[in-house]
Amino acid sequence: MKRKGIFITFEGGEAVGKTTQIALLQEYLNSKMKDQVVFVHEPGGTTLGEKIRNLLLNDNDVRMCGKAELLLFMASRVELYEKVIKKALNEGKIVIADRYYDSTVAYQGNARKIMDNEKILSINKFFLDGLTPDLTIYLKMPAEKAFLRKGNSTLDKIELEGMNFHHAVTEGYDFMSKKEPERFFTIDASKTIEEIHKQIINKVNSLIKN
Amino acid sequence: MKRKGIFITFEGGEAVGKTTQIALLQEYLNSKMKDQVVFVHEPGGTTLGEKIRNLLLNDNDVRMCGKAELLLFMASRVELYEKVIKKALNEGKIVIADRYYDSTVAYQGNARKIMDNEKILSINKFFLDGLTPDLTIYLKMPAEKAFLRKGNSTLDKIELEGMNFHHAVTEGYDFMSKKEPERFFTIDASKTIEEIHKQIINKVNSLIKN
Repeated sequence: MKRKGIFITFEGGEAVGKTTQIALLQEYLNSKMKDQVVFVHEPGGTTLGEKIRNLLLNDNDVRMCGKAELLLFMASRVELYEKVIKKALNEGKIVIADRYYDSTVAYQGNARKIMDNEKILSINKFFLDGLTPDLTIYLKMPAEKAFLRKGNSTLDKIELEGMNFHHAVTEGYDFMSKKEPERFFTIDASKTIEEIHKQIINKVNSLIKN
Repeated sequence: MKRKGIFITFEGGEAVGKTTQIALLQEYLNSKMKDQVVFVHEPGGTTLGEKIRNLLLNDNDVRMCGKAELLLFMASRVELYEKVIKKALNEGKIVIADRYYDSTVAYQGNARKIMDNEKILSINKFFLDGLTPDLTIYLKMPAEKAFLRKGNSTLDKIELEGMNFHHAVTEGYDFMSKKEPERFFTIDASKTIEEIHKQIINKVNSLIKN
């Protein structure tokens, strides 16, 4: 696919502060270049995607097998790609995504062991026209610390998995960051919100200016 | 996968009489060997599958892209396979499925051209442990004739596609029946219900007795 825009993804385990940092980046970029930035999240971001999100995270009637979970994440992602991301990139916009296929490698591959990490990556890339993010901001911190910081708020079906699961998620991201180091920008997520925000701004600005 | 049961699938375009024939076969087999036969349908047949079925066929808020449709059919199928079909075959039962992966080759591959027929087949087999049906009963007739016979009943989202689509579905099944002729049993679906039922019974009995 020929494209002109910039594609930035945010990755990391549960409660590492992705949502907070994306909101701050959104505020910053909107003040600089409103209408040139599109923010999306996964699973969801489309009519179909939000219905799939509900099945995956909130519908307690459904206890699906791992492969079905993998396919539903992919269905939500491909819908978001086809309906939103592809168009925005073709228009030269900056697309910022709260999770993308690295999440599936980390969660469904490395943590759930549904299938080999490499296989998950190649199937995802196949369905998504081989498009790789220009930059992946990976917020990394120990799961115990992240959940402690989060406190007692309501947890969804994936957040409720055990600590071994969350450690394996982190290992999955480490696998990807070693595999594709040129696009991974790893940040110590235990730093203060302001420090992390500053690092993100610097990195994103350097990418936009090039 | 090691298995002891027999796996029979029914395939064909819209309104060729699959439901009628499966009901007749169900009645026949239940009288002969009740508790040894499991009937399933696609998309659906599980808690997750029925919710996916609704998104695919009845939810008019959702106009999804072709790849998402393909992935949702696969998610429903893999859930049915993992929760119902695999277990029943391991118990030595006869599993009879109203549609399986040949439908995805015919509809999403040959008719929607989402991706190459061979690619769809190989991804499906990969997610389904490579299991191939022992027998596929393919009810074949021209789409115009089938819809005429169906009359004015309510049509779902896929039935509402144009005639070119339905012709391509038939061509997709023809592709599969040429590719894997040893398992395909093609029946002229314009024959009478009784004639078709008799052909099916004879074929299924010959398989069960072996």
